[in-house]
Amino acid sequence: MSAATTGIQDRYPTRVVAETRPDLIERTEPAVWPGWTQGPATPEELRAHEENGFHITRGLLNEEEVRSFRDELTALTRDPKVRADERTIVEKESDEVRSIFEAHKISERVEKLVRDPKVLDHARQILGSDVYVHQSRINYMPGFRGKGFYWHSDFETWHAEDGLPGMRCVSLSVALTDNHPYNGGLMLMPGAHRTFVPCLGGTPKDNYKSSLKEQRIGVPAEEDIALLAERHGIEQFTGPAGSALWFDCNSMHGSGSNITPFPRSNVFIVFNSVENTPAEPFAAERRRPEFIAARDFTPVHY
Amino acid sequence: MSAATTGIQDRYPTRVVAETRPDLIERTEPAVWPGWTQGPATPEELRAHEENGFHITRGLLNEEEVRSFRDELTALTRDPKVRADERTIVEKESDEVRSIFEAHKISERVEKLVRDPKVLDHARQILGSDVYVHQSRINYMPGFRGKGFYWHSDFETWHAEDGLPGMRCVSLSVALTDNHPYNGGLMLMPGAHRTFVPCLGGTPKDNYKSSLKEQRIGVPAEEDIALLAERHGIEQFTGPAGSALWFDCNSMHGSGSNITPFPRSNVFIVFNSVENTPAEPFAAERRRPEFIAARDFTPVHY
Repeated sequence: MSAATTGIQDRYPTRVVAETRPDLIERTEPAVWPGWTQGPATPEELRAHEENGFHITRGLLNEEEVRSFRDELTALTRDPKVRADERTIVEKESDEVRSIFEAHKISERVEKLVRDPKVLDHARQILGSDVYVHQSRINYMPGFRGKGFYWHSDFETWHAEDGLPGMRCVSLSVALTDNHPYNGGLMLMPGAHRTFVPCLGGTPKDNYKSSLKEQRIGVPAEEDIALLAERHGIEQFTGPAGSALWFDCNSMHGSGSNITPFPRSNVFIVFNSVENTPAEPFAAERRRPEFIAARDFTPVHY
Repeated sequence: MSAATTGIQDRYPTRVVAETRPDLIERTEPAVWPGWTQGPATPEELRAHEENGFHITRGLLNEEEVRSFRDELTALTRDPKVRADERTIVEKESDEVRSIFEAHKISERVEKLVRDPKVLDHARQILGSDVYVHQSRINYMPGFRGKGFYWHSDFETWHAEDGLPGMRCVSLSVALTDNHPYNGGLMLMPGAHRTFVPCLGGTPKDNYKSSLKEQRIGVPAEEDIALLAERHGIEQFTGPAGSALWFDCNSMHGSGSNITPFPRSNVFIVFNSVENTPAEPFAAERRRPEFIAARDFTPVHY
């Protein structure tokens, strides 16, 4: 059953089969929602988030915390049970762990981070409501041969394949390694979160199995990327380990390859508003597994 | 006939077949050679070159000159005679021109640049002698899907495959497009030019045919790259179009991929000292074609 049959209005049609490139859709929703006034996010951070679709908080984790998160990551990647878990993505050629999904259910440290007031209240300030975790993971990108990830909006996928109706969702990426301008860190287009870019092509069955490694569907046309880059420019998420990037679900972002010896790892948590819960996918035959797109909408509390 | 049979001493053995990683070789030659005192390079630039193995000259070309070089490049890539020339590297998938070798013989503009006192005398100041062009080319790297180039020392190849005996050779890369930190520009390790990294593995026949696209032979071991990066750090060649990078033949450098819409193109000229002319290759069965490694050692004059 897809959303088409549920009667929920699709404000962001995508994965369309069309002769011509579909029109861009200007967003009417805010990035920062009213309704939650207490929390660690400063007015400047919230203004930047509304305007650019992202903002960076330095030193969310201190050196000691970074070290223990990294140790935890190492321990998890060595745990045979974790490696064998379907929520763990292991790269075939190298036999190395790339991502561990549902990290907040697997790692107590990540679970605590999700409930930490400086994280949870920050998310609630942005989304203006109670929130739950739509997705979480720990990522490990190797040096020397780290592949990049092409330009995309996460919301495009979460709308098409998971059924998130609106853009009331925010991601937190906490760097566990230093992000240099040259080791494949995230690039974002400030302000491009205000534009939804419909993508061409239908969603293949079980698309997530390949799309987590390399996205081929839900990829914007080059003309659209060029237009947005021309209009908004490109910024990089750089900074020492422990820095945190909050970015809107519709931020246009991507990353290049990493040939430097400096690997990158991060904890990635997606908070969705409890007023934006998904029903059926808008452009896929069936739902993705719950470890990729949660169906338990219980609000997070301290 | 390889250099092994000519009796010329091989100070930089490479392409070795070994059980263990060969030792790194510390260079005894300078990067800036005495003997030429007049020219546009400032004492600071020469000091930086000696110490780091590279330096950047801003505004070597002004906006008008950049524009005419770019127009020339466009005209050349559209010229059926140039496209059919063996000196032109055309990417099969896209049918786009990536490089035009012997650019100084094909383009009058490049030829003039080579003879321009602000270029020629700069090269002579660094190499301390008369110079000739070992190689020249115009490069065009597309946006969206520009592939990077893995870490390497140019000298390693020019020594192994062309027979350059010593490190008395310098490259000039003139940016014809803006180099951002995020569109796949050159990365260098300042100071790593003082270390020669012998590489494992023999040179296949006609290696240049594939190595110009992706280098598989003459690639340093990951441990060596990690060691040099740890010791020297990484810097990027960024700056507006018209900026010029002078870099020593043994600089350890590489570049990441480019997924941004901003392509990169540059003019690349390799000056070799007339006192460092090659005889036979040190680690290859036969010489590469002359459009890749010149055998005409006539000094360049105004």
